[in-house]
Amino acid sequence: MNDALQPVQALRLSEDARTAHDDRVIVEAPVALLYNGESFAVMMATPESLEDFALGFALSEGIVTTPAEFRLVDTVRHDDGVALHAAIPQARFDALQERRRGLEGRSGCGLCGVESLQAAMRPVPRVATPRPVAAARIRDALAALSQSQPLNARSGGVHAAGFAYGAELLVREDVGRHNALDKLIGAMAGQPACDPSQGFLVITSRASYEIVHKAATAGIGVVVAISAPTDLAIRTADVAGVTLVAFARGDSLNVYTHSDRLLPD
Amino acid sequence: MNDALQPVQALRLSEDARTAHDDRVIVEAPVALLYNGESFAVMMATPESLEDFALGFALSEGIVTTPAEFRLVDTVRHDDGVALHAAIPQARFDALQERRRGLEGRSGCGLCGVESLQAAMRPVPRVATPRPVAAARIRDALAALSQSQPLNARSGGVHAAGFAYGAELLVREDVGRHNALDKLIGAMAGQPACDPSQGFLVITSRASYEIVHKAATAGIGVVVAISAPTDLAIRTADVAGVTLVAFARGDSLNVYTHSDRLLPD
Repeated sequence: MNDALQPVQALRLSEDARTAHDDRVIVEAPVALLYNGESFAVMMATPESLEDFALGFALSEGIVTTPAEFRLVDTVRHDDGVALHAAIPQARFDALQERRRGLEGRSGCGLCGVESLQAAMRPVPRVATPRPVAAARIRDALAALSQSQPLNARSGGVHAAGFAYGAELLVREDVGRHNALDKLIGAMAGQPACDPSQGFLVITSRASYEIVHKAATAGIGVVVAISAPTDLAIRTADVAGVTLVAFARGDSLNVYTHSDRLLPD
Repeated sequence: MNDALQPVQALRLSEDARTAHDDRVIVEAPVALLYNGESFAVMMATPESLEDFALGFALSEGIVTTPAEFRLVDTVRHDDGVALHAAIPQARFDALQERRRGLEGRSGCGLCGVESLQAAMRPVPRVATPRPVAAARIRDALAALSQSQPLNARSGGVHAAGFAYGAELLVREDVGRHNALDKLIGAMAGQPACDPSQGFLVITSRASYEIVHKAATAGIGVVVAISAPTDLAIRTADVAGVTLVAFARGDSLNVYTHSDRLLPD
């Protein structure tokens, strides 16, 4: 067992049997993100690949703009969860405090530290024009992703995010789909050969606004979701110059934005 | 078309065809929750059944303890989203301000307005002992739920939460699983014959900490999830006296806590 899986006892009921069942479930714990000693957010996450998570969250939320601006100082495991202490440049910290003061002026807390409706709809950056992708390459990556989810295979109900570049597929898992993407973005930053504009993201979940926003902020130009997109995800992808693919299953997929980068077989 | 679905054009690629496709996708928009004029949180939600959502969120988050304490004053549709303005008793508002001041003292925002690790793990109330449920009744409710998701049927990727009581199944849908549950809890409050301890919750998603916490806060004693539970959801259900059922599919289901209320066929 590890930080990500927990053994539990369950009772399995079926039409003709009632049996004890040794099960393993995914771990979900509060993970606090602190910058220069100040707490910024708490996410419910699977406490694995936390270095990737800390860096990826800072990048995808625009708290820092390059990995060089970020240093994970300490990972503290408390009874109630995990605190990730990071150091960022003073100018980034000042900008974060400013962002937070604006939020507090509107009094209260909300979606991941954003408060008003306008704050919830942060401007999204426009990505560099991504390299075109062949549909067959997407099908291969989805097949590979389904074989690269050890936590989900053992416990079920775990999301995965993968980035396909060259012949590689980098994958991270988490109980939360946003966290899986943040972990992946952090892991990508540690791979010198991994250029966000030269590959594509595959996620096991739907494509929501936040997924597209985080991907675009990290410079990813092609997002492929197994399940449905939302209207806001489509509009955000359109503005950000992101090619958004959804319902990518079997031999079929739907392209909702910037379909010119999708090459047919 | 309505507030919940949006028509979009997609390009459908399959191995041998490339066709234009008229699609409908679920609407996702920022919805701000304000109490006595003060903004408390912004959720990304499907702007339908918003009266139910406003009341249900206030109940499931413990902002008010009874529907009588809550009054939706105004629903304002802005360009960026929807603002739900509610009035609550001064004592509840003072308690909310106190809760928020405690959070701001720890400087920052996080998970739905909670900040530190401890704040992320609010105490969960213990539910009244629920009425036992037959496994066959759960199978019937799951079958009925799958036929009661008009938004999901038309767009895909939409979560549903249902409450089965007597011969009734009350259902609400949303792009977010927590929001679907909040809408359901609000809708339940409007049904005089609906007692949270006399029926059970069925959800199309996984059972996370927040799902169990919200259900317990609303007095629901039996929670049935189609997908996996998390370890924290199981521990929370155990403490709250909630019977937690997961992987409820086909003719089989797993019971993780308080299995004595689950009657075999």
